[in-house]
Amino acid sequence: MRIAVLGGDGFVGWPTVLHLSDLGHEVHIIDNLSRRWIDTELGVQSLTPMDSIQERCRIWKDVTGRALQFHLLDLAKDYERFKAWLLEYRPDALIHFAEQRAAPYSMKTDRHKTYTVNNNVSATHNVLAAMAETGIDAHLVHLGTMGVYGYSSVGAAIPEGYLDVEIENLEGEKKGLEILYPTRPGSVYHMTKSLDQILFQFYAQNDNLRITDLHQGIVWGTHTEQTRRHEQLINRFDYDGDYGTVLNRFLIQAAIDYPLTVHGTGGQTRAFIHLQDCVRCIELALNDAPKAGERVKIFNQMTETHRVRDLAEMIAGLTGAKVAYLPNPRKEAAENDLIVKNDQFLSLGLNPITLAEGLMSEVVDVAKKYAHRIDRKRVPAVSAWTKELGERVERDPEGKRLKAVS
Amino acid sequence: MRIAVLGGDGFVGWPTVLHLSDLGHEVHIIDNLSRRWIDTELGVQSLTPMDSIQERCRIWKDVTGRALQFHLLDLAKDYERFKAWLLEYRPDALIHFAEQRAAPYSMKTDRHKTYTVNNNVSATHNVLAAMAETGIDAHLVHLGTMGVYGYSSVGAAIPEGYLDVEIENLEGEKKGLEILYPTRPGSVYHMTKSLDQILFQFYAQNDNLRITDLHQGIVWGTHTEQTRRHEQLINRFDYDGDYGTVLNRFLIQAAIDYPLTVHGTGGQTRAFIHLQDCVRCIELALNDAPKAGERVKIFNQMTETHRVRDLAEMIAGLTGAKVAYLPNPRKEAAENDLIVKNDQFLSLGLNPITLAEGLMSEVVDVAKKYAHRIDRKRVPAVSAWTKELGERVERDPEGKRLKAVS
Ligand SMILES: NC(=O)c1ccc[n+]([C@@H]2O[C@H](COP(=O)([O-])OP(=O)(O)OC[C@H]3O[C@@H](n4cnc5c(N)ncnc54)[C@H](O)[C@@H]3O)[C@@H](O)[C@H]2O)c1
Ligand SMILES: NC(=O)c1ccc[n+]([C@@H]2O[C@H](COP(=O)([O-])OP(=O)(O)OC[C@H]3O[C@@H](n4cnc5c(N)ncnc54)[C@H](O)[C@@H]3O)[C@@H](O)[C@H]2O)c1
Repeated sequence: MRIAVLGGDGFVGWPTVLHLSDLGHEVHIIDNLSRRWIDTELGVQSLTPMDSIQERCRIWKDVTGRALQFHLLDLAKDYERFKAWLLEYRPDALIHFAEQRAAPYSMKTDRHKTYTVNNNVSATHNVLAAMAETGIDAHLVHLGTMGVYGYSSVGAAIPEGYLDVEIENLEGEKKGLEILYPTRPGSVYHMTKSLDQILFQFYAQNDNLRITDLHQGIVWGTHTEQTRRHEQLINRFDYDGDYGTVLNRFLIQAAIDYPLTVHGTGGQTRAFIHLQDCVRCIELALNDAPKAGERVKIFNQMTETHRVRDLAEMIAGLTGAKVAYLPNPRKEAAENDLIVKNDQFLSLGLNPITLAEGLMSEVVDVAKKYAHRIDRKRVPAVSAWTKELGERVERDPEGKRLKAVS
Repeated sequence: MRIAVLGGDGFVGWPTVLHLSDLGHEVHIIDNLSRRWIDTELGVQSLTPMDSIQERCRIWKDVTGRALQFHLLDLAKDYERFKAWLLEYRPDALIHFAEQRAAPYSMKTDRHKTYTVNNNVSATHNVLAAMAETGIDAHLVHLGTMGVYGYSSVGAAIPEGYLDVEIENLEGEKKGLEILYPTRPGSVYHMTKSLDQILFQFYAQNDNLRITDLHQGIVWGTHTEQTRRHEQLINRFDYDGDYGTVLNRFLIQAAIDYPLTVHGTGGQTRAFIHLQDCVRCIELALNDAPKAGERVKIFNQMTETHRVRDLAEMIAGLTGAKVAYLPNPRKEAAENDLIVKNDQFLSLGLNPITLAEGLMSEVVDVAKKYAHRIDRKRVPAVSAWTKELGERVERDPEGKRLKAVS
């Protein structure tokens, strides 16, 4: 297959590129490198030393003999260039990672909110409009988030995208109806993924586009089979307060002997998946495309759920770190249950890597190995969801008040 | 109250401005005049001769002694200027009409699709982000559409925005849940209103913004009490294939002795409201604001429903025109029922003007009166929803094939 990976320079995009190239596909990377610019804006860098995308492609060619093509293109702004690209290369599939993906970044200031909405909505809609316009019959696989479901649980298991409900018709009879799961995003970032869902629903229905939406949990893990093949193929590892996910930040805190900072009670339950499983899921989804005219296919791409405080205890147990509880800068439920269905990927043959198995390798091979590159000031989360919550920003463990990084 | 009318130069915006000014409110108009530019792009003009917004404001001042302030501002692009405006004027309420509002225009070409999405999403989100950022505690009243509900009926009455459903929890018990009515927009334009709903839900929940969303039917009628006060206060009347709603186009066809062109079987049922009722509803909604922290208040702003073919017959009956059935350029259900709840406005005292009462005045005072200004070529609808449907564009009644206007 000829596959375009939109956002292929990113944390999940890059290992996906390598995984698919390794399988023998012709892989093209489209990226505007905005994520690297955001590193510059925030004054942060990946824990792992990361080369330019051009250099990484060159190394992969050296190591495997397989070519990767990189195209610098802003999907939100260069609509006409993207359309021309589609017509020239006529890909069989597009995998769409190209969005601003950090919830704390999306809540930093109004500038970050408007940037996130404009970038994500325009990028997704441009991809759809160009597919409809050119008539290229490609399969679009999009990376969504578990966060579209919202975390204020109704005490029911979260189905894969759609919910069966009953409503009463005019004759007073109950009738079954399948609907998109009612969305309750908890940040501007998550909200853009809820908007994406509606864009997909419309274009699948009006233009018969074939679309798969992967509602992904938090991705953990740094290496995949392919990124291990050469030091310079190493993947990005974010640990700052904006882009570092909760697990990465715990790993780093443990590596520098800081207490693991849990926000609120730590009773928030989240879904997780290892990076290696994630690229495997994308492969499975690619091979299981919906037919033209069918509704959007939605998978829950996650393998286990954990409470934040249990994660902290798990890492504390492995490393001897302490756990500290701080005020929560997010507006969210203090405690929530989360039971998620993921039968579709399991039935397609996914065999998950659990945190219990894989975490030690992250502690040793990643966090400890690159500990000398850690900038301690960058670890705390400082973006607050509202102005009131902003008054209670995270303090560092020595009790000094940390200033916002924006 | 100090009220900002966003999109106050438009078809519904202008009479709203006059109605509220007449009630003694201090009214500010914010508009980028993009709708006038679109007239230029399409080579169409309002049937009624329409002055510049500055001139219309001057006349209103002359006639009533009441001042209106006009601010030229693009809500989708001038975020910082809008925020500064908010901080300077600190309005008590914002009424948001400022979106590209024609479904056929939104489906013309990919350029029109991306324009509609980018303009509407950015305008709405910028308004919300600026309100949250400045902390101005204004009531936001937005004009949405009945089209967010979709028209493929499930045989149940359409509630006002929210639907009560039952879902099964982990213990196998049925639990009640109130959700936003599952959306099924039928065009890119309608889709942007579905996106708006999610933006509103988020900002009401995260930032306690007070928001009312009016799901409006098709507005008919040209005059209100205030626009009648002076020839130069007259409202816009669109009759072209993009902006002219079905009723306006029938009126114009009748005035020039063309058959009334019905798309498909004419079995599509739509909701309607007279312009005079519409400005009254906005007044009622303004006085019935939700409290901070409450969910978005949603009203169905419509007063009656009709099948398109019944409308055609009604106007044919009044004017002696013939009815012609043509292929439908839209991808939509051929026939649908539509039963809509509008109890909230009725209970607040709305006393609707019916089509049966008001239609004759439109035929005589508007369509016949300005018939000399009609450009016959502009009447047919030529935007097709998909490329396949585009092959069957509307022909004019003499059988000549009409070319697309884009
Ligand atoms: N990382 C996770 O834990 C996680 C969890 C759930 C969902 N996701 C989703 O998976 C996708 C990838 O996540 P990631 O962690 O790799 O993020 P990332 O920020 O590392 O990668 C995103 C890439 O997209 C590019 N990009 C952004 N906007 C673009 C535009 N307008 N035009 C072209 N390129 C653009 C960026 O430069 C970056 O290389 C995202 O959509 C994210 O929402 C990620
Ligand atoms: N007319 C109807 O039958 C009808 C029915 C249902 C809902 N609505 C909704 O009511 C609202 C008003 O409808 P209308 O018929 O008066 O439309 P209109 O096109 O006549 O008016 C919209 C106004 O908004 C302005 N505008 C658009 N984008 C803007 C931007 N980015 N910044 C500043 N101004 C901008 C335009 O210049 C125009 O003056 C729309 O949101 C529409 O979706 C209308």
